[in-house]
Amino acid sequence: MAKSIKVFAPATVANVACGFDVLGFAVDAPGDVITMQLTDKPGTVITSISGDGGRLPKAAEKNTAGVAVNAFLKQLNITQGVEITIEKNLPLGSGMGSSAASSAAAVVAINELLGKPLSREALVPFAMEAERIACGAAHADNVAPAIMGGFVLIRSYAPLDLIRIPSPDNLYCVIVTPNIELRTEDARKVLKQEITMKDAIQQWGNLAGLIAGLMQKDYALIGRSLQDVIVEPMRALLIPGFEEVKIAALESGVLGCSISGSGPSIFALATSNQIAENAGAAMKVALNKIGLEGTIYVSKINDEGARVIEQF
Amino acid sequence: MAKSIKVFAPATVANVACGFDVLGFAVDAPGDVITMQLTDKPGTVITSISGDGGRLPKAAEKNTAGVAVNAFLKQLNITQGVEITIEKNLPLGSGMGSSAASSAAAVVAINELLGKPLSREALVPFAMEAERIACGAAHADNVAPAIMGGFVLIRSYAPLDLIRIPSPDNLYCVIVTPNIELRTEDARKVLKQEITMKDAIQQWGNLAGLIAGLMQKDYALIGRSLQDVIVEPMRALLIPGFEEVKIAALESGVLGCSISGSGPSIFALATSNQIAENAGAAMKVALNKIGLEGTIYVSKINDEGARVIEQF
Repeated sequence: MAKSIKVFAPATVANVACGFDVLGFAVDAPGDVITMQLTDKPGTVITSISGDGGRLPKAAEKNTAGVAVNAFLKQLNITQGVEITIEKNLPLGSGMGSSAASSAAAVVAINELLGKPLSREALVPFAMEAERIACGAAHADNVAPAIMGGFVLIRSYAPLDLIRIPSPDNLYCVIVTPNIELRTEDARKVLKQEITMKDAIQQWGNLAGLIAGLMQKDYALIGRSLQDVIVEPMRALLIPGFEEVKIAALESGVLGCSISGSGPSIFALATSNQIAENAGAAMKVALNKIGLEGTIYVSKINDEGARVIEQF
Repeated sequence: MAKSIKVFAPATVANVACGFDVLGFAVDAPGDVITMQLTDKPGTVITSISGDGGRLPKAAEKNTAGVAVNAFLKQLNITQGVEITIEKNLPLGSGMGSSAASSAAAVVAINELLGKPLSREALVPFAMEAERIACGAAHADNVAPAIMGGFVLIRSYAPLDLIRIPSPDNLYCVIVTPNIELRTEDARKVLKQEITMKDAIQQWGNLAGLIAGLMQKDYALIGRSLQDVIVEPMRALLIPGFEEVKIAALESGVLGCSISGSGPSIFALATSNQIAENAGAAMKVALNKIGLEGTIYVSKINDEGARVIEQF
């Protein structure tokens, strides 16, 4: 068994237009990297964090990676000590599953170091505990795909029921992150607690269509289904230029475009790397026009989830 | 081309627990039978209706079969006359898609008689017009599976987008119809126009799970997903003994049980004919205990939809 390990966990897109709170997928890059080693001195210590501009807490019980590892160790009654180094590559509060990537990498790392006592799926609840610290709710739509890869449906939270949804080989994602920050907690506040039956019917019709489209590799159906009539209209108001960016993406030939997670990042799915690149450039131009900068990330859907980069 | 044709169209289960207004499936039996012939005298004439106890209108513009055929003829600019005989085998107002079966059989019959100018899917809108007459809303979740067979998802109504969802080979349905009548229009009145986001999330998680379960032939997932947290609680109040019947079904080992369409029929899905038979018997006993009679229908999922029985 390795004594030290380096694990990468990717950015994730939660909600995926019509799948609010129940669907997410992983991309190839960017992502966070956790280096972890077991020590003889009990307790979880975060030795360094880079890339966060000093904003993340180093106290293990306040840091998503630390919380996730501690939940794992407690459940398995393990008293060994752990040292963690975090390289943050995901911008904070961007809607790309930044907090989830760190906790996902952390639970995969500790599981590997201890000889894989648990399956990938069984690691998700520990990372969900970290989400509770990070954004006030133990949601799974970022951590599950970050750990398991691909598209993951959270059919139910109680009991937790995670379903891996197969997706077509040629599915590319572009994410554009405007240089503004939106806290998940704040993005949750704008959500209505009641919705109309009419909107709900349209939403679940689209989600069912998206699941069928992904599984049948029917790109046109995926495109027709990528519509959010409930959450996007509420949250788009918090994202300056959202409509313009979405129009730019759709005019570039993507299958569909919506808010990534709770925003402000905006994602689109496309059938080729080239279309995704073109869309990204057009989306950035749309942002620039209203005086905002943005970062473009283009990548394939990541079927693997978090992965071991190095162990020794 | 045949001058006269006999077409069978099956009963259908709409809503399917978590798929309110967007999902339905067809069973093998029972169903309605339409005999149709072309005549030289313009106009649609319903020459006889049997099995309805004299309750259905014979005027073509008020009868679902007549309305569906007239919509078809008008769209295709056909001035030929049509004579229709209807054998009703489905009880009226039972929640088994009785009105839909007659209009489905009728549009398939006229399409066949005219040399199949349209695909099965393209016939659905004509039968939907008939649904508007029968129950006040042009819904498609009975007529689409009655015409196309299997499970059909109505992803969207405007534009109409019908998706055939593959289902496992060994899927059996039992329907128990209590001898009370419930008009779709009345069953619609008890529905709330607003629902909570929390319930909606649970519902679309389950519908996504059901679609994935059907496509992956994962019976356990189908079972876990067959839950309706929105419509069933409202409509169950209109169906005496619903809870007892459902418990009887679940205790017999079915995958799940809910209201068929707008009720009062209650359906369950099972992995074998034997389980479905046993469940049907137990469901009937539960009905009897509260003083109601019921009819049991057990059948496989019907992948074909309406079918030509005879032509000459």
